[in-house]
This record gives sequence, structure tokens and C-alpha cells, in this order.
Amino acid sequence: MPASYAYLGPEGTFTEAALRTLPEAATRELIPYVSVQSALDAVRGGEAEAAFVPIENSVEGGITTTLDELVAGAPLMIYREVLLSITFALLVRPGTKLSEIKTVSAHPAAQPQVRNWLKKHLPDAHWESAASNADAARLVQEGQYDAAFAGEFAAALYGLEALETGIHDAENAQTRFVLVGRPARPAAPTGADKTSVVLWQRDDHPGGLRDLLGEFATRGINLMLLQSRPTGAGIGNYCFCIDAEGHISDRRVAEALMGLKRICLEVRFLGSYPRADATEGEVRPPLRGTSDDEFMAASDWVARCQDGRF
Amino acid sequence: MPASYAYLGPEGTFTEAALRTLPEAATRELIPYVSVQSALDAVRGGEAEAAFVPIENSVEGGITTTLDELVAGAPLMIYREVLLSITFALLVRPGTKLSEIKTVSAHPAAQPQVRNWLKKHLPDAHWESAASNADAARLVQEGQYDAAFAGEFAAALYGLEALETGIHDAENAQTRFVLVGRPARPAAPTGADKTSVVLWQRDDHPGGLRDLLGEFATRGINLMLLQSRPTGAGIGNYCFCIDAEGHISDRRVAEALMGLKRICLEVRFLGSYPRADATEGEVRPPLRGTSDDEFMAASDWVARCQDGRF
Amino acid sequence: MPASYAYLGPEGTFTEAALRTLPEAATRELIPYVSVQSALDAVRGGEAEAAFVPIENSVEGGITTTLDELVAGAPLMIYREVLLSITFALLVRPGTKLSEIKTVSAHPAAQPQVRNWLKKHLPDAHWESAASNADAARLVQEGQYDAAFAGEFAAALYGLEALETGIHDAENAQTRFVLVGRPARPAAPTGADKTSVVLWQRDDHPGGLRDLLGEFATRGINLMLLQSRPTGAGIGNYCFCIDAEGHISDRRVAEALMGLKRICLEVRFLGSYPRADATEGEVRPPLRGTSDDEFMAASDWVARCQDGRF
Amino acid sequence: MPASYAYLGPEGTFTEAALRTLPEAATRELIPYVSVQSALDAVRGGEAEAAFVPIENSVEGGITTTLDELVAGAPLMIYREVLLSITFALLVRPGTKLSEIKTVSAHPAAQPQVRNWLKKHLPDAHWESAASNADAARLVQEGQYDAAFAGEFAAALYGLEALETGIHDAENAQTRFVLVGRPARPAAPTGADKTSVVLWQRDDHPGGLRDLLGEFATRGINLMLLQSRPTGAGIGNYCFCIDAEGHISDRRVAEALMGLKRICLEVRFLGSYPRADATEGEVRPPLRGTSDDEFMAASDWVARCQDGRF
Repeated sequence: MPASYAYLGPEGTFTEAALRTLPEAATRELIPYVSVQSALDAVRGGEAEAAFVPIENSVEGGITTTLDELVAGAPLMIYREVLLSITFALLVRPGTKLSEIKTVSAHPAAQPQVRNWLKKHLPDAHWESAASNADAARLVQEGQYDAAFAGEFAAALYGLEALETGIHDAENAQTRFVLVGRPARPAAPTGADKTSVVLWQRDDHPGGLRDLLGEFATRGINLMLLQSRPTGAGIGNYCFCIDAEGHISDRRVAEALMGLKRICLEVRFLGSYPRADATEGEVRPPLRGTSDDEFMAASDWVARCQDGRF
Repeated sequence: MPASYAYLGPEGTFTEAALRTLPEAATRELIPYVSVQSALDAVRGGEAEAAFVPIENSVEGGITTTLDELVAGAPLMIYREVLLSITFALLVRPGTKLSEIKTVSAHPAAQPQVRNWLKKHLPDAHWESAASNADAARLVQEGQYDAAFAGEFAAALYGLEALETGIHDAENAQTRFVLVGRPARPAAPTGADKTSVVLWQRDDHPGGLRDLLGEFATRGINLMLLQSRPTGAGIGNYCFCIDAEGHISDRRVAEALMGLKRICLEVRFLGSYPRADATEGEVRPPLRGTSDDEFMAASDWVARCQDGRF
Repeated sequence: MPASYAYLGPEGTFTEAALRTLPEAATRELIPYVSVQSALDAVRGGEAEAAFVPIENSVEGGITTTLDELVAGAPLMIYREVLLSITFALLVRPGTKLSEIKTVSAHPAAQPQVRNWLKKHLPDAHWESAASNADAARLVQEGQYDAAFAGEFAAALYGLEALETGIHDAENAQTRFVLVGRPARPAAPTGADKTSVVLWQRDDHPGGLRDLLGEFATRGINLMLLQSRPTGAGIGNYCFCIDAEGHISDRRVAEALMGLKRICLEVRFLGSYPRADATEGEVRPPLRGTSDDEFMAASDWVARCQDGRF
Repeated sequence: MPASYAYLGPEGTFTEAALRTLPEAATRELIPYVSVQSALDAVRGGEAEAAFVPIENSVEGGITTTLDELVAGAPLMIYREVLLSITFALLVRPGTKLSEIKTVSAHPAAQPQVRNWLKKHLPDAHWESAASNADAARLVQEGQYDAAFAGEFAAALYGLEALETGIHDAENAQTRFVLVGRPARPAAPTGADKTSVVLWQRDDHPGGLRDLLGEFATRGINLMLLQSRPTGAGIGNYCFCIDAEGHISDRRVAEALMGLKRICLEVRFLGSYPRADATEGEVRPPLRGTSDDEFMAASDWVARCQDGRF
């Protein structure tokens, strides 16, 4: 197993910054790839142990490139997730003053986060889109533009300095990243976990999707993401990427997945892994009747009934 | 274990006739008891191996005395059920002619089945209720009444003759009887089985009962009887006696019972046993997604996912 | 319209006592009938303005004679309900001492309420069942038995005295009575009302009954009684007598009834009337989203959408 | 009201081709805009009567730019939809031979549709992405690239010729476009209609989304699109864009919308309009119990009950 992690590059992006928050990243070689697809292919092809890619952000929602790569092709599995708050720094060549900035650049996805700031502080600056925020920084370094919006961590990499930090029009702007590998036994449950699956409906009828979701609801399982993706079979044909609270080794989650497996055309398991947003207050205890203890007690009781000992 | 069956007597009733349709009855001593309660107490107390009592009829519905006895007290289990079509014979002392009949007797429950026949053939006869149809026959034998409505099989027992047979105002008049014993391992599934349970709701809220029934519906299980019985805790407090299609060893039934066990205040298992109405045409195959094979395949799949082999 | 109320007699029963708690009873002639059926027939036939009969008690559950009469035949409607706590007095001929009582009598339904008292205070007394508690009192008056269990109010009627009052083994023993008349515009809602209906399922399939109950649950309506009654079409064929919280003029109740009407084979409306158990604490406000105001607002909004004004 | 339609330009794209299939387009001035946002702003600002934009395709799913524009800002309404099958022509300057093509261009979204064709017929050609297929054609016209993939209709516009037509890797590749205007009374139902709404959940709890979908399922309404979009309130906060079968003037749809309005935090109505895929075979009749006639009959029945005439 190669001790390397592929990630969506280039260097100096938020993706790299998020990846470096993982302790295990310190002991791996981190290799940038030009696309989500190529990073995941590196895993599928055995060149990398795992790939680190963005999967959801608070502006775009589910990131479709990543979802579509996970939905199709050889099975992959999510091992970990990381949540990163997205705030920008305005990076310039050392010595540049705010008043000297005529052109700014960044990835188009940065725009919603910096638009108001620009309107207020650089109303006359001309915007040029770049392939990534890191690329924008590089182009500033090379003198093509005057300033780039990027993560503050990109300054050192490109010999720039941050004229302003903490730029974020929207509160709560976050991106969720996942570490994806080949199928393996999921990490043990932590008590605050998340399970990801993809569901294909068997046929289309009134109440069909309601019944799918009912498999979760009946077991008291909360959903955290529901994203439809086209199956390629024409307009109106969708599969559903779902993140649910809980771990596949939780009895309620296992039973819900069994129920889905029975009624769906196909179910793809994408992993059970610790929730990045787990803090004391946010993790609800299982609803009454859905804890492992209650599942076990019910299972024991049925076994006793089957055996005539009740 | 005493080789005797208690039954709701006296001799010569439909209950005895139904009991005698069971092959195993031929090898037991059949002992009549004066009430359902005393027959079931004989089982609870170890005096009888099993008790045979009526539990449902097409006129009265669930027979509350029997249901209430099963709901409370030491646990009992239903081993078998028998369906008997109820048609009456008009029994008289030998030689009595129709025109000579001035008084007729039977158990009040017989009335709905013979009312029209009486109106047509004996419009002037006086009706006297008896404690059982067999008692009515005995009272005819003793000369107190001229004729009794009872099962044809009662004629020989009381030295009477049947002046008319096959009397039944209502088509489809049937009574369902059950053979009840102490808890034991249920008989193996036959492919056409029924499972009986009693449910107590945890608390009362909009949708509470709908959710209980949802545990069956989610697993594609059809209900055959739903009878509410008061819990004794005051007006409006009910438990529910339910007969469902399937056997507790069917995966779908086991999972539904586990679900009920988790969300109910209490569940009492009353047994899984062959359906008396099982004929080729009446037994539906499990709905798609609810067969044992599909449950097993889903369970295997989840186990593989838990193990990282998918 | 005859200014008389029929009731299940004879005089001196709990039914009469419950009827007399209704203010309007003071201005009507109250006529006892020998059976629930005859009392209801008096209404159907126009001889009585309304009939007052027991419909549910905490020991028996739904009183099947009454339910079956309401389910079939010409439509009737429930106008009012009365809840009566059932406690017994021990009635004797004046001067009789407890130690002199050798025989006691009452309707069999009284037994569960007085069994423990008897065991403690009159362990050797012989029990004789009577057709009603009032009949038992009459037979004591006539000298046939020594004592009767009946409502204290029966003492004066039969020239007896109460040797003991407040006898009740079970707490919460209550009987619910209803005043039944020909269909009419239901009384205006009081804020704490109940609606009674009878439902016949269109066909029998897994989830069928769950879906019926879903029509109530979707609108946040709590159920207070669910009693199955055989339809007469053979074992396993049931209709359902349901009492639900709310008044047919409540928007949520009206919409639920419309839903039932659409999916049921048949629905029989049995009336909307004030709850007898309505006290400040017991009446829950409508769940969020189910008040009349919210229904109206939603209806207005759809109308505006239909009209293009949003 | 300006008699013009804005559309996502430039000229010569599939969007324009789809727009021209609408009869009413012949009588309007058709004005290309550089973005979906600017086209919709033209409507909001009163410069255009309506805007024509892509909303869903079989490769991408819901087109998020369009959905997000409809979800937020001043209310707009969908008047019409158009489905267009997407097949490409290979456009070259007149006289160019296949063997002379070294560079090809198109919008990146074209790639999945032409990839296999390229691999087979032009394995060595270099791909350059363009801002639109029409732009690619223009750049071929200008000599910058040798060939462009675009709609065949674009050839004339740019003085090119189609070397090959009907190129489509995927069968069923379609794009759905909508004509969007300011709120108005929806067109009368055609019998095969679609209703679009956006839903915001009131709070997040197990079963919450299932209950939302239950409002449709309870009324037998099939869903055709379910697309989650972030609300901007942070990761995991979504609203749902839903297309459902039926017209807001259908009673079942109106009742479902009322139900959603009552339980959702917010509902935005996006219009009821004829289905573009309506053909005899594809339009299912309403499920039993959900037709307008059945709704009306049920409503009449409840009115009669409320009035005491039943």
C-alpha cells in the first residue's frame, strides 16, 4: 500500500489546508492532482492509499463531480471527513498597497464570499477568474494580476503577503472534504458518526421516495444530506446520495440499510465515519426505542419467543 | 404432562365438534369445562395439556372473554386454530312433528342464524334462551322444550333426532377456535401461518397507532384481526390484539416484532401457527423485498459492508 | 317531534342516573326500554326524540350491541356523551344487618367491581345474577335475595337502604353513555369535541389499515377509540368504529374525513359532540400546522397561487 | 408588457433552438443574455416578458444556477417547459476534411456526449473548451480551431458546414428548458401537467423529509424531480426543489400544497404548466381516490354531514 494521499490540487488551496488538519496526513506523502477524477482514479488504480477531495459546500451544496465519481465506477469508501471554514486573505506581492490594486483574481467559487468586500474596498478593481485560488496566487507572483483571494496559508507558498485576512461575506461558509479509499472495514463507531449511501429506486410510483426515506425514519435515523444525481438514463432518472446519522455497526443503521437493500434496485455503501461537526451539544442520543441496547433486547425477546421461553 | 385437552363445554357443542377435527384430539382425553376462564386455568395450573376455546366468530367478532384471558395472567400460547362453519339442526325428541313444536331453545348467539328460518317455518314458536345449545338439547330431552337448535352432532348425545339440518340465515357464518397451551417452541412454519400478538402503546399521541401498524406494513405484512381491548386503566385505555400473516421464524415477521418490542410499552407474543383457511389460492407470496431470501441477502450485504468486503 | 328520550331501562340503573346528569333530560319524558335495540328503534321509528344508551366501559371496552346498532340500519347520530364513574351501593331491606346477608345479586357486569369487597366482607354470601342491577334491587324488595349491588340512587326507588356505598374494586371504572338521535346539524364546536365514524376498508392489503389511520395522523388528529366490528361477511371481515379528537367543523377533521371518504369503501359519520372528559388540562391544542387558522392561511395561499398573486 | 423573451445566449445554442420550438416565440423578439441570472433579472426588472433558460439535463441533473435563481429573489413563475434531445454536429469551415482536423472545441458539458465519437474518429485531435458551443463555432469561423461540436442549426449562423450530424454517445441525452415569467394565473390544466415548488423544512428531525414527501404520497401524487439546494445557512442546510405530477387546480395537488404550507417553514410556488413529455402512454390517470371527482364527492359528503343531511 503506497503511503501517499492524492488530493485535489494545486498546492496552496483550501483542500490542501483541510487535508493537513488530519493527523495521519503528517505521515503520508501528499500528492496534488489536477482533478477530483484523477485523484480518485489514483486510488482506484492503486497509486495512492487515499484521496482527499471536497464533497459539499455551503454555497454549492453537494459537489457533483465528487458525488458522481463516488456513485459510479469501482466502489470507493469514505474514511474521514473534514469541515473547513472558508475565509479569504487578499494576497499581494510584498509592498503592494491597497490603492495600487487594479486587478484581482480567484476561482469563481470565491466570488460569493468576497463580492461585498470588493464592492466596499476595491470598487474599481477588475476581476479575472482563475482555475484555482492557488493559481490566482501564482499569477500574482508572476505579475499577471495585482492581488489574489486565497487562503492565508497560500501566501508563503507563493512569496506573497496578506494585505487583509478573514474576508467572508457569508457567515457559516464551510466546505466539507472527505478522505476516500478502497473498501475496507469502517473505523469503529465513535458515538457521533455518519453513514453515506447511494440509492437507486426500483420503480417510480407515488410514495416511492417517501418509502425509501421511511426506512430511515422508522428507525429514528436523521438525514443530513439528500442529493439527487442523474443516473444517465434520461431526464427524471435520479439516484440519491444520502448522509445519515449513525454508524453501520449501530443496529438501527444496519437494519435501515437492510430495509433499503430489500426495496431498492441498488444500494451503494459509501462508508461510516466520524462526524466532523461532532461536539457535545450537537450529537443527539438515539430516539427512544432505537438504541443498540433496545435493539438487542428486542432481538433477544424474539429469540426467546421463537424458542418458547417467554 | 397430562394427556388431556380442556374445552369449553358442555359436550355436544360446536366447540367439541371443532376440537374433534384435530387429529391429535383422538389421542387425548377431552374434558369439558364450564367457562373459557376455567378451561384456560386448567392449562395454567397444569391440569390440562391444552385448552380449546372459541376466539372469534363472524357475528360477534373477537370473543372478548377469550381475548381478555389471553391478554392477562400467566402467558399462554396458541398452537392451532380451527375454523368451523356454523349451521344448525332442529333437534326434537324422536317422533315430534314440526307442527307440534310450541317452544324452541338455543344459546342466544344462535338467534341471528335461525331467525329467518323460524319466521318462515315456526312463526308462532316461543323462544327460550339456554346457557348453551347443548343445554337446550338436554332440556328438550328432559321434556322442558319441544325443540332445540344445535349442531347435528348433538342429536345422538341427547337421544334426539334432527327434523331439519343445514339451517343458517347467514352465509359465511363461522367460528374460529384455538388450541391454547403453555409457552413452547412454535410449530415449524408451513408457508401459510398466522402470528398473534397483543400490543400496549407506550403513550398516546397523534399517529401512535399508525406507527405501530407501520411496523407491519413496512415489512409487507398483512393484518387479519385487529381487536382493541380495555386495559382496565379507564375509558379510552386499550391494548390491541392483532393477528398477522406469517410465522415468527419468517424474517419479516421477526423484524416487525422486534420493531414493535422497541416502540411499545409491552408486547405479548401469543404464538405462530398454521392458518386454518390456508388453501392454494388464499396464501399470497411475500411482497417483493420481504421474502426470507431477500432478508438474508440484505443481511449478508450489510455484513460484507461492515467488513469492508464489497 | 316527541319530547321524549328513550333509554336502556329499567329505572334505577346507571344508565338512567347518567341520563339525568344532562340538563335537557329535565324537560323530556324519560322512557325505559328493554334493550339498546328497542331504544334505538324508537328513535328510528319516530317514537322518541333521542335514545340514551351505554357505548363503552372501562371493563368491557366498546359495547358491541350499541356499536352494531349504530353501524347498521338507518343512520343515527350521537349528540352528546356522558361519563359516569361506577361505584356500587349494597342495598338491603331496611333493618337488614350485614351479618344477616346470605344471598347477593346484581348484573354480571358488576362482579369485577365488587368481587374483592365481597371476599372481604361477605365471603360466604351466595351470588345470583340478575338481568340488571335494578332488577336485583327489585328482587331484594320482593324478598327473593337479601342484598343487591346497584347504584345508590336505586335505593329510594325500591324502598331499600344502602348498607354500604362507594364500593369499587377498580379505580377508574367508568361507563360512557351517548345520546343518539336522527341526523341533524351537529352542535357547534366547544373546543373540546369528539368525532365518531365507522370505516369500511376498500380492500385488504398490507398497510391498508395503516393508511386509513394515516388520514388522521397526517392532520395531527388523535384517536380515542378504535373498535373493530365484524361486517357479517365472514371471519376476518371488519369495519372500524373510531372516535377522534376534534369536531367536523374543524378544518383538520373535515379534511381527514374527506381523505377517508376517498379511500374507504364506505364511511359512516356518527356525529361530532362535546367531550365529556374535557377539562382544562386534558384538551391539547392542535399540533403545529393543524389549527383552523393555519388551514385557512394555507388555503388562502393556494388560492393566491392559483390566481397568480404571490 | 414588452413583447420580448430573454434567453441564455449566445445565438446558435441549444437554448435558442429549444426556444424556437415554442409557437409563441415566433411573435416575440428573442434577446440573448450572457447568463441565466441576467436573463431572469431582465424579467424581474420588466425589460423582458419572460426568460427561457435550461433547468435540468440528463447529465448534470438540476441546473443549479437556474434553480438558485428561482429559489431566491423576487418570485418568478414557470409558464412552459421544453424538452430537447441533445445531439451534436461536427461543424467545420466549408471544405475542411475530417483528416485535417487537429483541434476541436465545445462547451465542457458537450464532452460526455462526444467523447466516444472523438476517440473513434479523431483520436489525436486536441480539445479546447469554449464558453458555449456557439462560441466554439464562432472561433472555428474565425479560424482559431478546426472544428466545433454544436447543434446543427448553428452551422448557418456561423457560415460553417456539418461534417457529421447526430453525434451522441448517450442515448436519452436531453435538456429541459423553462419559460419563466412574473407571477400570473397559471395556464389551464391540460390533463398532463407538472407543478414546481420549493420547500424549506421547519426543523430537522428524523422523518421530517419523509413527512414532507408524505403530503404528496397521501394524495397519490408522483414526484418527477427532487433536488436539494443549500440555503446558505451553512453545511447541511437545504431547501428542496420539487416537480410533482399534476396542476395546482387539481384538487389533490391543491390539498397537498396546503398540507406543505402548513408544515413547512416556507413554500415557494414556481408554477403549474403542461408537461413536455406528455404522450398518451406516459400520463397516468389519478390513483383511485385522488381524482377531482372523488375529491368533490368527498367534499360534498362532508358538507352534508356538517349540515346533518346524510
